[in-house]
Amino acid sequence: MGETDLSGTVAVVIDVLRATTTITHAIANGAECVIPQLTIEEAQQQHVANPAALLGGERGGERIKGFDLGNSPTEYAPAVVAGKQILFTTTNGTKAMQACRAAELIYIASFANLTPLCNELAEYENIQIVCAGTEGEITREDVLLAGAIVDHLTADAPLIERNDQAQIATDAWQEAKSGLTASSLAQRLKRSRGGRNVLRIGLEADIEIAATLDSLNVVPRLDPKSWQIRDSRIS
Amino acid sequence: MGETDLSGTVAVVIDVLRATTTITHAIANGAECVIPQLTIEEAQQQHVANPAALLGGERGGERIKGFDLGNSPTEYAPAVVAGKQILFTTTNGTKAMQACRAAELIYIASFANLTPLCNELAEYENIQIVCAGTEGEITREDVLLAGAIVDHLTADAPLIERNDQAQIATDAWQEAKSGLTASSLAQRLKRSRGGRNVLRIGLEADIEIAATLDSLNVVPRLDPKSWQIRDSRIS
Repeated sequence: MGETDLSGTVAVVIDVLRATTTITHAIANGAECVIPQLTIEEAQQQHVANPAALLGGERGGERIKGFDLGNSPTEYAPAVVAGKQILFTTTNGTKAMQACRAAELIYIASFANLTPLCNELAEYENIQIVCAGTEGEITREDVLLAGAIVDHLTADAPLIERNDQAQIATDAWQEAKSGLTASSLAQRLKRSRGGRNVLRIGLEADIEIAATLDSLNVVPRLDPKSWQIRDSRIS
Repeated sequence: MGETDLSGTVAVVIDVLRATTTITHAIANGAECVIPQLTIEEAQQQHVANPAALLGGERGGERIKGFDLGNSPTEYAPAVVAGKQILFTTTNGTKAMQACRAAELIYIASFANLTPLCNELAEYENIQIVCAGTEGEITREDVLLAGAIVDHLTADAPLIERNDQAQIATDAWQEAKSGLTASSLAQRLKRSRGGRNVLRIGLEADIEIAATLDSLNVVPRLDPKSWQIRDSRIS
């Protein structure tokens, strides 16, 4: 979505398949915080200084060698992550977070926390939604969630200004929204570029989980100063 | 839409408001050819060598000082352009054409020639649609036409592969298409970023013209070798 200056804005990062979905599950399951890391090396260096933290993330969709966890939401179960800090690096998602570093606040979005997230975003003006995409190209699974967020935020406030990209995303979501069920959303995600990548590595269940609307009542937020993701309502 | 390698592909350039719409009108009204120029200086230099040619185009939406024509379709009337070569430069459209230079063929798209264009595109595989946008950002008026083209090309061929961007564009068009009239399309174009820019300079009529579907039976095509746009059916 171009090189937008995010200073003074509230950023919302979307990587539905799977980074931001997985982070939302980790926070909902009691992780103390998730600390995004741009590279594997950076994560490993941080781990030396912070050996109690878990190492999580992927490259090519797969768990990184020597890491505790991959990038599937189900790996981040309460018994595994409760009370833990998680050093987390993924191909596109953590890069998108890094690109938001100049924002005032950075929200982490997923279908799993759509309503609580939007309820909190409604307090702000000047929101910028950043879709992680794949290899620098926008992908449909992220655009659908972006459209769902814009739709939520503007449903009762038709005069809120949307830029063209927000409007295009809303169009995409409107089309998906008619007759929406968890399985129809999962079908759409499976056909998306991110979805095809996840299917290729045999993790179809991750897509079903990512397509489950409002299953988690948390609002993960990345503090640009501490560079930690925590539930905004308890941090 | 990223830095895609277009070699070996058939490119379709879209700048609905207004470059590709205006070019389509110029060709339909008998211009011998339109020669895209990246800069004003380049156009002026070419004009020294080719003084019989008309100079056309815009900066900031307005006709360029010393140029014969601006960027409104109505300026390119038969009495003005018939038999003429036109040296043409615009802010975003001619830049998008330049970006397609590596393609095998470059089609110039508008709502005005949607059906004849798509009938010709149906002969090709590996089509890349390039939206000119504004200041490097994708705009809704271009995405709507991209979606209309994809919809046309895939309506009878559901197995044709569409990338995520094509699918997002189709979603946007599907939403616009239900209950479509020339005036509903014009309304959408007026709300788009390009539309707001055109309204700001008082050229609302240009938007109405750009929203008129299938009014012209020409298929303007830019030959990457000669760098001239002519009707593909007579050149």
